[in-house]
Amino acid sequence: MNRLRTSFQQTTGQISGHGKRNVGVLKTAFAAVADEMASDQYGTGAIIEPFEQKFADVLGMDDAVFFPSGTMAQQVALRIWSDETDNRTVAYHPLCHLEIHEQDGLKELHPIETILVGAADRLMTLDEIKALPDIACLLLELPQREIGGVAPAFSELETISRYCRERGIRLHLDGARLFEMLPYYEKTAAEIAGLFDSIYISFYKGLGGIAGAILAGPAAFCQTARIWKRRYGGDLISLYPYIVSADYYYELRKDRMGQYYEQAKQLAEQFNALPGVHTTPEVPVSNMFHLHFDGQAADISPKLEQVQEETGLGFVGYLVDKDGYCSTEISVGDAYGELDQQTRDAGFARLRQAFS
Amino acid sequence: MNRLRTSFQQTTGQISGHGKRNVGVLKTAFAAVADEMASDQYGTGAIIEPFEQKFADVLGMDDAVFFPSGTMAQQVALRIWSDETDNRTVAYHPLCHLEIHEQDGLKELHPIETILVGAADRLMTLDEIKALPDIACLLLELPQREIGGVAPAFSELETISRYCRERGIRLHLDGARLFEMLPYYEKTAAEIAGLFDSIYISFYKGLGGIAGAILAGPAAFCQTARIWKRRYGGDLISLYPYIVSADYYYELRKDRMGQYYEQAKQLAEQFNALPGVHTTPEVPVSNMFHLHFDGQAADISPKLEQVQEETGLGFVGYLVDKDGYCSTEISVGDAYGELDQQTRDAGFARLRQAFS
Repeated sequence: MNRLRTSFQQTTGQISGHGKRNVGVLKTAFAAVADEMASDQYGTGAIIEPFEQKFADVLGMDDAVFFPSGTMAQQVALRIWSDETDNRTVAYHPLCHLEIHEQDGLKELHPIETILVGAADRLMTLDEIKALPDIACLLLELPQREIGGVAPAFSELETISRYCRERGIRLHLDGARLFEMLPYYEKTAAEIAGLFDSIYISFYKGLGGIAGAILAGPAAFCQTARIWKRRYGGDLISLYPYIVSADYYYELRKDRMGQYYEQAKQLAEQFNALPGVHTTPEVPVSNMFHLHFDGQAADISPKLEQVQEETGLGFVGYLVDKDGYCSTEISVGDAYGELDQQTRDAGFARLRQAFS
Repeated sequence: MNRLRTSFQQTTGQISGHGKRNVGVLKTAFAAVADEMASDQYGTGAIIEPFEQKFADVLGMDDAVFFPSGTMAQQVALRIWSDETDNRTVAYHPLCHLEIHEQDGLKELHPIETILVGAADRLMTLDEIKALPDIACLLLELPQREIGGVAPAFSELETISRYCRERGIRLHLDGARLFEMLPYYEKTAAEIAGLFDSIYISFYKGLGGIAGAILAGPAAFCQTARIWKRRYGGDLISLYPYIVSADYYYELRKDRMGQYYEQAKQLAEQFNALPGVHTTPEVPVSNMFHLHFDGQAADISPKLEQVQEETGLGFVGYLVDKDGYCSTEISVGDAYGELDQQTRDAGFARLRQAFS
C-alpha cells in the first residue's frame, strides 16, 4: 500500500486536493502579512476578535469562537447543550467523527451517553429521529463524510429542524464541509446554519488551510465555549498561525466551491463509466465522493500504480479493503483545475485500459 | 492601567521579554525552512517525530509528545498517573497553574480530586509532603512562578524524589521554565528530569516560541498520552507552525539561559536598591522575579509611565494591587541584552529620582 501512496505523491498533477500539505501553505498565507502585526493573546486581540465576528456574521450566529480543532469544538458544543438541557444523552450518526475518530473523547471526558441513529451505510431518517428517547442534542453532519459525502434535501433539513425545535432538542451541525455544500443547496451558509442551534466549520477540508475550526452559536453558548476551550487547553497564547491561514484560504477558495462541485460530478461520471468502478454517491452533492473498485486492494493497487507512474496523473493515494471491493476518497480542490484537458483525457484513457 | 501598558509598548527598549510577540516571530522561524518541507500529519512525519525524540533525549526520558499547550499536557499527565495507580487524588501547590489558570479543567474533565500542599506564599516543605494522604501524583513546579520564581535546592528535590519513589507516588514536573533553571542548579535538563516520572516543558516562556509544549516520560505513559491528546482534540492534522518555531527558538536561546539569569540577578539588585521597591526572590534563581512597589497601582503607575515616556526604556507593563503594595513580573530575555549600558543607567537613574 505504501507503493500506491508513493506513486501518488510522485505524480505531477492530481485529481483531488489542493496540492501538497507543506510549509509552503503557511508561507503563502503569511507572505503579505506585516511582521509588526501583533499576536492574539489568549483569545483577545485584533487578529482573532474580528475574525471570530466575521464568521459569526457569515453563519448568521450571535458569536463564534476559534478552536484549534473540530474535535475540541464539537465535544464542547455537546457538553454545553447537555448541561443546558440537564440531559446526559446526545445522538448522532454511527459514523460520526466523535464516534470513530476521537478515541471516545466525548465519553471519556464528559458524563455523556450517546445514541447512534440509523444505520452506518446511509443517512438517518426523520422516523428514526422521531423514535429517539429524550435527548439533549442531535448532531447532523453535512455532508455525511464517511459514506461518501451524502446529504439530505434542504426540505428534509427544515423538517428535522422544526421537529427538534418543537421538542426542545438542540440541533448541532458538523459543518466541517459546509461551504462545500452550498452550491448543491443553492443556499448561503447562514441559511443552512439558521436551521441549527450551533455549528462547527473546519478550515482545512475544502478550504485547505492548515488547521483550526470555528464554533458558532448564541452569545451565552459561545461565552461558555470559551471557558471550556480554556479547560481543554485550547486557549493558546497564540493561535494566529491557524487564524491567518484560515482567513487567507477562506477568501481564496470560498467562491470556488461551485467549481469543485461541478468538477466532482464530472469526475464521478468518468469513474462510473469504467468497468468494475463506481462512486458513492453516484452523483456527488459536494466536492467529495467515495471511489470503489471491485476486488481487493492488493490486486487493484498495482494497476493504479502503473497508471500513475506512466501518466504522471495522481488518482488514488490509498485504498481500504471492504467486502469484495476497495475504496478511497476523492475531494476535489485546486489541483484538478490545474490539470489540462489533455492530461485528464490521457489519464482516464489509460485508466480505462487498465480496468478493461 | 491601560496607560501603563501603552507607555510600556511604546518604549524602544525593555528590560524584560524577547521583544514584541508579533507575526515576525513566526516569519523569522520559518525564513530558512523550505516550502517543500511536508507538514506533520496527525502526530506523524519528519517534522514531528525527530523533534519529539530530540526532547526525549534532552530530558533523558523514553519518549516525548508534542502538545499544543501545557494545560492539555499536564491534565493528561495527571490523569494517566491517576489511572495507573488507581488513585483519584493528586497534589500540588496552591498557586499551581492547574488550580488558578485553567478554569478547573482537570476537575471538570476528569474524576480527579486535588489537594493543595502548603501555603500560597511559599514553597511546600518535605514535612507537608510527608503529611499527605495516599495520592497518585505530586506535581512540582520549577521555579514556582506565581511566587516570583522560587525553587528548592537540588538536594531537597532529590529528597522529595526519593520519598515519592519509596511511597509509589508519581512525581510530575511542571517544567514550563526548566531551561531557565539550569544555570542556578548547574545541572542538565536530564539530571533534573531524572528525579521525576514525567515532565512538561513550554516553548514560549524563556525560549520565546509561539506556543506548544512537550510532555515526556516512560514509553507506555507517552503512548497513552497520545491517545488522550487525540481525545482532547490536540492531535491536530498539522502542528508544524508551533514545532518549527519551538525548535528554532530552542536552538537560538537554550545557551543564553545563564546570561538571562545573571542579568536577572543584576536587575533585581538594582531594583532592591530603590526606596519602596523590592523583589521576590531577593536574589533570583532563574531569569524571572516579581517586582513590588510600596503603595497602590493607581499611585505607582503614573510615576512609571512618566519614566518610561521620558527615557524610552520599558520597565513595567502592568501592576496588580496587593495588600499595601503592587506587583509585576519580570522575565529577562533577549530585550535586556539589546539595551546599551547608557540607556540602562539613565533609566535606573530616572527611576531612582521618581521613587525617592
